[in-house]
Amino acid sequence: MKAIKGGITSPAGFLAAGIHAGLKKAKKDMAMIVSEKEADTAATFTTNKVKAAPVIWDQAVLLGGKAKAVVVNSGNANACTGKDGLLDAERTAETVASLLGTEKGKVYVSSTGVIGVKLDMEKIENGVKTLFPLLSRDGGVDAAAAICTTDTFSKEAAAEVMISGRKVTIGGMAKGSGMIHPNMATMLCYVATDARISSETLQKLLGATVEDTFNMISVDGDTSTNDTCIVLANGMAENDEIIYGSKDYAAFEEAFRYVLGELAKDITRDGEGAGRFIEMNVVNALSKADAKKLARSVVSSSLVKAAFFGSDANWGRILCAMGYSGADFDPSLVDLSFSSPAGSLDVVRSGEPLPFDEDKAKKILLEKEITVKADCHQGSSSATAWGCDLTYDYVKINGDYRS
Amino acid sequence: MKAIKGGITSPAGFLAAGIHAGLKKAKKDMAMIVSEKEADTAATFTTNKVKAAPVIWDQAVLLGGKAKAVVVNSGNANACTGKDGLLDAERTAETVASLLGTEKGKVYVSSTGVIGVKLDMEKIENGVKTLFPLLSRDGGVDAAAAICTTDTFSKEAAAEVMISGRKVTIGGMAKGSGMIHPNMATMLCYVATDARISSETLQKLLGATVEDTFNMISVDGDTSTNDTCIVLANGMAENDEIIYGSKDYAAFEEAFRYVLGELAKDITRDGEGAGRFIEMNVVNALSKADAKKLARSVVSSSLVKAAFFGSDANWGRILCAMGYSGADFDPSLVDLSFSSPAGSLDVVRSGEPLPFDEDKAKKILLEKEITVKADCHQGSSSATAWGCDLTYDYVKINGDYRS
Repeated sequence: MKAIKGGITSPAGFLAAGIHAGLKKAKKDMAMIVSEKEADTAATFTTNKVKAAPVIWDQAVLLGGKAKAVVVNSGNANACTGKDGLLDAERTAETVASLLGTEKGKVYVSSTGVIGVKLDMEKIENGVKTLFPLLSRDGGVDAAAAICTTDTFSKEAAAEVMISGRKVTIGGMAKGSGMIHPNMATMLCYVATDARISSETLQKLLGATVEDTFNMISVDGDTSTNDTCIVLANGMAENDEIIYGSKDYAAFEEAFRYVLGELAKDITRDGEGAGRFIEMNVVNALSKADAKKLARSVVSSSLVKAAFFGSDANWGRILCAMGYSGADFDPSLVDLSFSSPAGSLDVVRSGEPLPFDEDKAKKILLEKEITVKADCHQGSSSATAWGCDLTYDYVKINGDYRS
Repeated sequence: MKAIKGGITSPAGFLAAGIHAGLKKAKKDMAMIVSEKEADTAATFTTNKVKAAPVIWDQAVLLGGKAKAVVVNSGNANACTGKDGLLDAERTAETVASLLGTEKGKVYVSSTGVIGVKLDMEKIENGVKTLFPLLSRDGGVDAAAAICTTDTFSKEAAAEVMISGRKVTIGGMAKGSGMIHPNMATMLCYVATDARISSETLQKLLGATVEDTFNMISVDGDTSTNDTCIVLANGMAENDEIIYGSKDYAAFEEAFRYVLGELAKDITRDGEGAGRFIEMNVVNALSKADAKKLARSVVSSSLVKAAFFGSDANWGRILCAMGYSGADFDPSLVDLSFSSPAGSLDVVRSGEPLPFDEDKAKKILLEKEITVKADCHQGSSSATAWGCDLTYDYVKINGDYRS
């Protein structure tokens, strides 16, 4: 596997575009991704009972197993918009399908933004018509910018891997950055690949990968109504089909996990108001499930997050968050340490505080990227979760989002 | 039942005191409550796997069913302090017991404050000796002040009720105000009553009442290592013993729920940095459990809380938080409304937005106490949860708590 610079249009046969359609005041707000050849597809969606209209539409698209395009708007989530919202999602797909000469059931639709306001369909339809002639092999950057809402930077990642002698490319783009929480992380993510792989195999791979990437990040504990991760595989790399469990599968999986992992971490780095990126490593836990619960609980704790904002080595809050995680572990065996580019520091051994140099701790915690390690000394399972600090800016951004 | 002004020393035969023992810089930091007669007792504790040393001590006291005193310090939680911490809790109980001429197994010990720092036992023991001669029937106010940490006001409540022709009094005090979350709300709470009631009956009553009061409030989603709610009943009202399920029990329960409810709401009002108090009423849900999940999920959502900080009628976040609560409900049937002393406003009918006057909404949401009502139109169960807004001050208070 080789990490490369690129995004959604890096794999062969994918075109994209991003434009300002007028849904948001002054930034690009509509994107389209098209595969030259019909693609096999896999997807995961929000577990929220309140599902936005496009999510309901996309669940039906997924059942077909084949897709040709994705159209995304920011500025309006088309959630809590009733039957009209569903008709609007369908009409959007129809407009795209008629331009592409495909069926509406092969067009995914995503929306992100304010909840409970009906889509301005005139702007959406004009947007689709404007996007169509702009589709290009270089359009990934514009598309990645257009799906953003309060994001402060675009999220793109790509990788190459050799499969049966053919170069296969995977590229993706994502947006955060509020309402981010495990199960699944609130976000939109699109992944394209020119690999030849069936939708069934792709769905298994996506499910397992999302568990260890997007479901291991937290910004604020809110699971949105619009969470979506869509994968398109158009087979244009002409590799031998990737069979589940094979050596090729393992190679492809490594690259696929890399792309989704980078996007997940970038979403966390760009958490609303975030000043610091926190990686929580749990090792030697009794089971994988316990390790995950422990890691996620720490990065989800408001008190832990506020302590990182203050660069405060308040390890008690970390142990406390592990304690209420619901995981099976023995607090009296736990070792804790902090590390960052400025050094590393052991703060707890066997559940009890170690004396440490507060100045050294401050220096480590003033860095932008901090790793916390918890060794449970009970088993052999590990997990990593990613989060960010809780800042004044988070409160500010969310105190008046609608204006 | 009659609400009265008062607190922990309102019931007959209870003495209390509160002093500055030097654990905190410049406020009262130790309290003692003593019952003249040995009392029947009930208690509930944190569900956190990481339990502070005094919690472990108190669980053993509870098993005995009888108690004579409670001693509390703020400034240091005596949590994550290993075997020494347990010995310190025991030694504190011993010091109190020897002064009172009782057994150490009848003395509850509570600590609240910083995690992972060993107790200064010299200050604790001097504190106990200073407290002892100050114990009085008027000491409730000082005791309530001494248990506070970042609280901005003391929490006290009391009520009277007639049981078998005798006036029975219940009085309580509590502290918040960070690490407050359902299951059980992170807090310390002490309730005294002169009722004659067995520890078994009291435990049943306490469990049921905590479910609807302290477990229905949330400040920040963190469950602490030290949560404790202790009840002492000394029988000095000389009522006929209150039997579980009787008419007397119902009368006593009403007063008991009132006292715990007032304390729980005051903890929320005084949530760290809180500017607004939010009551979430869920009605006509399919089951009590669903109603509770829905109500708690809303008051626990960072995004909902930030919206209330900004007085933003962002009802979409409320419906979204209901959606990921895990409760069974149909979003397309839900009605939502806001109300406060400035008026009331319907914002959602049958899951879809109603047009509303933004100025009127702002006026309602600028008030200090706001009620949100969600009508599920599916069943006949209801529940209420209480929370507060998420403010800059929450982040500030918790960004550098240790200094």
